[in-house]
Amino acid sequence: MAHPVAPVSPPLKDDLDIVIPTIRNLDFLAMWRPFFEPYHLIIVQDGDPTKTIRVPEGFDYELYNRNDVNRVLGPRVSCISFKDSACRCFGFLVSKKKYIFTIDDDCFVAKDPSGKEINALAQHIQNLLTPSTPLFFNTLYDPYRDGADFVRGYPFSLREGVPTAISHGLWLNIPDYDAPTQLVKPRERNSRYVDAVMTIPKGSLFPMCGMNLAFDRELIGPAMYFGLMGDGQPIGRYDDMWAGWCAKVICDHLSLGVKTGLPYIWHSKASNPFVNLKKEYKGIYWQEEIIPFFQSVLLPKECTTVQKCYIELSRQVKEKLGPLDPYFQKLGDAMVTWIEAWDQLNSPAQQAAANKKNESTPSTKSSILFGVTY
Amino acid sequence: MAHPVAPVSPPLKDDLDIVIPTIRNLDFLAMWRPFFEPYHLIIVQDGDPTKTIRVPEGFDYELYNRNDVNRVLGPRVSCISFKDSACRCFGFLVSKKKYIFTIDDDCFVAKDPSGKEINALAQHIQNLLTPSTPLFFNTLYDPYRDGADFVRGYPFSLREGVPTAISHGLWLNIPDYDAPTQLVKPRERNSRYVDAVMTIPKGSLFPMCGMNLAFDRELIGPAMYFGLMGDGQPIGRYDDMWAGWCAKVICDHLSLGVKTGLPYIWHSKASNPFVNLKKEYKGIYWQEEIIPFFQSVLLPKECTTVQKCYIELSRQVKEKLGPLDPYFQKLGDAMVTWIEAWDQLNSPAQQAAANKKNESTPSTKSSILFGVTY
Repeated sequence: MAHPVAPVSPPLKDDLDIVIPTIRNLDFLAMWRPFFEPYHLIIVQDGDPTKTIRVPEGFDYELYNRNDVNRVLGPRVSCISFKDSACRCFGFLVSKKKYIFTIDDDCFVAKDPSGKEINALAQHIQNLLTPSTPLFFNTLYDPYRDGADFVRGYPFSLREGVPTAISHGLWLNIPDYDAPTQLVKPRERNSRYVDAVMTIPKGSLFPMCGMNLAFDRELIGPAMYFGLMGDGQPIGRYDDMWAGWCAKVICDHLSLGVKTGLPYIWHSKASNPFVNLKKEYKGIYWQEEIIPFFQSVLLPKECTTVQKCYIELSRQVKEKLGPLDPYFQKLGDAMVTWIEAWDQLNSPAQQAAANKKNESTPSTKSSILFGVTY
Repeated sequence: MAHPVAPVSPPLKDDLDIVIPTIRNLDFLAMWRPFFEPYHLIIVQDGDPTKTIRVPEGFDYELYNRNDVNRVLGPRVSCISFKDSACRCFGFLVSKKKYIFTIDDDCFVAKDPSGKEINALAQHIQNLLTPSTPLFFNTLYDPYRDGADFVRGYPFSLREGVPTAISHGLWLNIPDYDAPTQLVKPRERNSRYVDAVMTIPKGSLFPMCGMNLAFDRELIGPAMYFGLMGDGQPIGRYDDMWAGWCAKVICDHLSLGVKTGLPYIWHSKASNPFVNLKKEYKGIYWQEEIIPFFQSVLLPKECTTVQKCYIELSRQVKEKLGPLDPYFQKLGDAMVTWIEAWDQLNSPAQQAAANKKNESTPSTKSSILFGVTY
């Protein structure tokens, strides 16, 4: 261009990591380049660690394969799933940033109804940086958006809202259906662009999908554990659901907000419903007991941090869900291991070191305390 | 037309009344003619009963002025507000239909983003005839709409939903703001068309606006009391809020659903914020105590009907809100009077007579048990 426009500094450039779990070359990043290139990526390579994952030129990233994960966590690696996108939570563990955006490698840039490409990350940041309103429903949706506000009858004492911990984005094209629904409606596509962001009210659970998700790691990070799924486990495709149930009850307890709605990504291809059915079928009947459990969980007021809440939750999981299947004993133990790993990698000393390193490297390269840098 | 198309019978033509409170000529109906003409209207004339309200030709309606209301209710008329749109609930009382749609006379037909005129009534009917999902949040909004479904992780046992009692529609152009917000943002207009219908989760209160509202009278009618507002009362513009708080806690208790979102109407003109402030200011500080009260209301399991719930609620209002202001003692008494009036006008015998009359008059004219027919 003859007159290049001075680039506007992307928001939270030094405060946000993009976490991508993958088993393949990351060609999908090409389409995201205008939006993701200024940010640091944490790639969690699932499956065969000897395979080389190709990352398009120009991205700033660190990549962890299974050998790296083993090395970083030692015996605590048992809490990280293998051959399942649940492994993404390892990226949350090793990040030193305040915010995380995680996205699947079959998600592309969607367009809004005017045909404009949607900067999903910018919308997530907007969602995270404005408060949530879990204590009273606002009928005009997000009151902090331009052109909207709190409607008549909304209590003024609640208009400051609460800090937003999670921003859950949606998907155009292939909807996030379970295997039975995929089988029954193989051709259904989501073409409805709903121009809304809303807070999920306190006390209400939701099915959190990990495909297009952002969160404030400082506020809720230790609850974003994606459970034991995939290789050697009796269940798959419930990793994000598990994290969503746990995180929502903890957000409700700690007065933090969860938003859902915008931004949309374009979900390119449906996974195989037969394979999914095999992964899901235990979850489909277990959830009929898991959800009433989470709907009635009470966290004592002594649980003042996410870690304390999560340890208490692990105790209740073992006690209340243990009788359902021995898997939940194992999962409860893994939840404790996860918190130990979190505290190991996120001790105040390490946090201070990370902050120091960040200060001394004002480039787009972020600090890397563990793992392999490419 | 050379080849007139056989008219499709409008949905619920004989099962729905449109209730309109007004003080002026109903010229606004002209724009609604294609959608409303097949239905029966109940017009509640507020203010001076000697004034003649003009209704455009061709509508099937009954009209009640204050003299009619007095005559129908006798001493129980004390529960019906005067000089306030709260008087609309008299129309709910005298209707004999299963469904009610109520709309303000400054609301016009809105257009969707494609420019098509929105049949608000048809959307409300669609909302009321499909279930609600208050027990778990569906991230793709109304799972019963074309092109949508329950997403992965939604418990199958909850996919039948619960009966829908209330459909709360929204407004383009002038948003429903309180006086302080009107004063601060006099030029704000709602131009965002959000293509969604959603259930308000169980346990979450919302600010219900009476401008564009439909409900199942058999399921929730006795809770749709719009309180004591306007002439002789210390408060106004909280009529629909009051009904919304009461109805929502009763819906939650009885496992009924409340939806909000589509349809939009075009709200043509903002009311005077200075007048509104005078009406609202007590409500603005009272609601800081009223809402925690409703958030913590517990209805005993013996309350198995809307009437029983409402009488119990009136008792709690007097006990818990009475100390806030003597007004709530009066309001609690009026809630009881309202239920007495409801039962008086909706006794099983009268219901049977109304049904019989409906059966014997298969025209668009509905049965009229009271009031003046024009």
